[in-house]
Amino acid sequence: MMSKLLLSGFEAFLGNAINPTEAIVSTLDGREIGGAGALTVTGTILPVDFQHGFERLLAAYRRVQPDIVLMLGLAAGRPSISVERVAINCDDSAPDNAGRAAHGSLIDPDGADGYFSTLPIERIVRALKDHGYPAVISNSAGTYLCNHVMYAMLNHIRATHAQVRAGFVHVPASHELAVSAASASSSATPMPSWSQRDLNAAIEIALEVLAEELV
Amino acid sequence: MMSKLLLSGFEAFLGNAINPTEAIVSTLDGREIGGAGALTVTGTILPVDFQHGFERLLAAYRRVQPDIVLMLGLAAGRPSISVERVAINCDDSAPDNAGRAAHGSLIDPDGADGYFSTLPIERIVRALKDHGYPAVISNSAGTYLCNHVMYAMLNHIRATHAQVRAGFVHVPASHELAVSAASASSSATPMPSWSQRDLNAAIEIALEVLAEELV
Amino acid sequence: MMSKLLLSGFEAFLGNAINPTEAIVSTLDGREIGGAGALTVTGTILPVDFQHGFERLLAAYRRVQPDIVLMLGLAAGRPSISVERVAINCDDSAPDNAGRAAHGSLIDPDGADGYFSTLPIERIVRALKDHGYPAVISNSAGTYLCNHVMYAMLNHIRATHAQVRAGFVHVPASHELAVSAASASSSATPMPSWSQRDLNAAIEIALEVLAEELV
Amino acid sequence: MMSKLLLSGFEAFLGNAINPTEAIVSTLDGREIGGAGALTVTGTILPVDFQHGFERLLAAYRRVQPDIVLMLGLAAGRPSISVERVAINCDDSAPDNAGRAAHGSLIDPDGADGYFSTLPIERIVRALKDHGYPAVISNSAGTYLCNHVMYAMLNHIRATHAQVRAGFVHVPASHELAVSAASASSSATPMPSWSQRDLNAAIEIALEVLAEELV
Repeated sequence: MMSKLLLSGFEAFLGNAINPTEAIVSTLDGREIGGAGALTVTGTILPVDFQHGFERLLAAYRRVQPDIVLMLGLAAGRPSISVERVAINCDDSAPDNAGRAAHGSLIDPDGADGYFSTLPIERIVRALKDHGYPAVISNSAGTYLCNHVMYAMLNHIRATHAQVRAGFVHVPASHELAVSAASASSSATPMPSWSQRDLNAAIEIALEVLAEELV
Repeated sequence: MMSKLLLSGFEAFLGNAINPTEAIVSTLDGREIGGAGALTVTGTILPVDFQHGFERLLAAYRRVQPDIVLMLGLAAGRPSISVERVAINCDDSAPDNAGRAAHGSLIDPDGADGYFSTLPIERIVRALKDHGYPAVISNSAGTYLCNHVMYAMLNHIRATHAQVRAGFVHVPASHELAVSAASASSSATPMPSWSQRDLNAAIEIALEVLAEELV
Repeated sequence: MMSKLLLSGFEAFLGNAINPTEAIVSTLDGREIGGAGALTVTGTILPVDFQHGFERLLAAYRRVQPDIVLMLGLAAGRPSISVERVAINCDDSAPDNAGRAAHGSLIDPDGADGYFSTLPIERIVRALKDHGYPAVISNSAGTYLCNHVMYAMLNHIRATHAQVRAGFVHVPASHELAVSAASASSSATPMPSWSQRDLNAAIEIALEVLAEELV
Repeated sequence: MMSKLLLSGFEAFLGNAINPTEAIVSTLDGREIGGAGALTVTGTILPVDFQHGFERLLAAYRRVQPDIVLMLGLAAGRPSISVERVAINCDDSAPDNAGRAAHGSLIDPDGADGYFSTLPIERIVRALKDHGYPAVISNSAGTYLCNHVMYAMLNHIRATHAQVRAGFVHVPASHELAVSAASASSSATPMPSWSQRDLNAAIEIALEVLAEELV
């Protein structure tokens, strides 16, 4: 029987001209991973908005009824793929695209302080490295939109006792983003970056690990 | 008439398992750049050795009699292609592969303090960015083998009044090197890296700029 | 009535010659903070050992019966005081001083995924900055001994329903440590550092915030 | 006989609210270093202005007629004292305080490509480390005002065959600057910083080395 994976990315934010997770999601949307019948991917792009970002993800989740949710986000400045270990019950950040900043508020006043990813994070990291892509486990998804949707998704799955696994992966900047960031500010330290092709390939490897996991 | 470019890379050093400049040079060795008759590339790999590194380059230089010398080196930790502006008359570093460290000694007691690259460094950076590869001008090639061969080459060209242009480009780690470095030391900060394919493509773009420059 | 604060630091680890938290704790041990009768400080130094580190802290906790526990650790590489927001139920790290590495194991199989610090972290950061010391809230205490004792302490307090507040603060390297690290490895990137005097003063400011909090 | 040292710092620039070299210079201005009769310090503050920065330094140089010139600058982002090895004949930077950017132009069309510092840079680094202050030799003073005045001063001394030694030292941000930078941009990476007291003490140690050098 066919399993379903919901793959989310984000629109551009915080003055970054582009968000490479959009291109990853549009490349992988509709793909079948791991041989016929294994895993079909449905992609969705979320607004960088504390109020509506998770709403949009939850709508897709209800429509798709996935077995797995893999959320993607951009971590400009990080040099490798980072597979997040944990989400925390906290918004604390610069303004989102609607202009709303957060100052240490709880995402869900009744939620746990933190939730671990329920994806096989060590296996994903190992598979990426085996295929020649630098990858690490990260112990913080920050306190911006990325952590927000990761926390809210895991919290929702827990609250509804759903048999769904979910987790978050941060990707480095694409070369294209790094070039545009450098043009915008001549004095900025250049940010590490990968080609979009490498970013797409790395996330496809992560999806293959998840497809095997479901067998 | 055919112009000739001498392209040098280095063997592995300082505990890095591989040096991506070797693969770049072996990929581009023998290539004709910029259309038939424009520029032919001869590659050479140098030992990481204060005593013999430049000797090897000079031997290739005398054999090839190039119009342009483009020297490549690895800058593990830098996130983008860095085109060096200047070489300085100083060796000051950790041990080379023969075990000889340097402690602030002059490369040539009769040489100038520094020599600017005679390649069109701004044009190379601009062409790389136009093709979507992050690139910067760097103001220091360090005081290890990379600076040593860059200085010695420019010094030799100046001393012999040769009509040859020369310069140095540092490349980031390859993904393969970053993965092997991370495995060797679990606590190390991951280094920025590019795929070998991207490194090769970026240096080919630099060669195209040089081919146009000669027309 | 006199309140009591238990202040812990760590011995040296992972090849760092010294641990500046030892000197901070020995400087502040026995001090009364916030005026007569407000808060007395008892210091204790913990071994960097997954098996015995928290045992030692718990023994001191039972002996002192503190109102507040402030745990300190070294974060070599971070440039400012970082007040930790959360501890997670995970050991995953390089070997401790007894040679035991951890590979993603749970600290307490029955514990929550994470626990927030119960100290006034925003107030501590604000007070430090008001006194001219750079400080941030950190969203990860890592997965080494620092996170381990922070998690285990918060978990114990929760399990025993004790009316005790607890949290963790990471400090940058001291100048002395940075100098010794640079001597040990000539090619290493220099680490950010503060004078031991500044480290001591900053933690004293944090203690003053805690003393006011108890009034 | 009394020797004279000209010590320069810079006003604030590029959006940094303060420049800690101003406070260093004002603290050390007028001091006698190395015992009575050894070395008297005259301080001067330079505008961050390609056109007038060196003019101001040259005016002070002509008035003071120093035996040694020690120029100071801020290197926000560097974690330790960095003693510059070389200045290069190039302005290439973001706008100065008068709004003029530079794009790779020569400082002196008739000058050498680079000039080494004529101060005992290894001895200064060693003395700083012996006193517990992290210090390194830096191979690039950048291509902004700091490099500009260092190059122009060394070039002038060379051109006039003056028996004057000169060099440049970059200092890290002060805690005060790091706090103000963090407040201005909540998402910025915190910059390494030292207390102003430490910065003043470190430069005083450098002056003591220079005083001994003159004996």
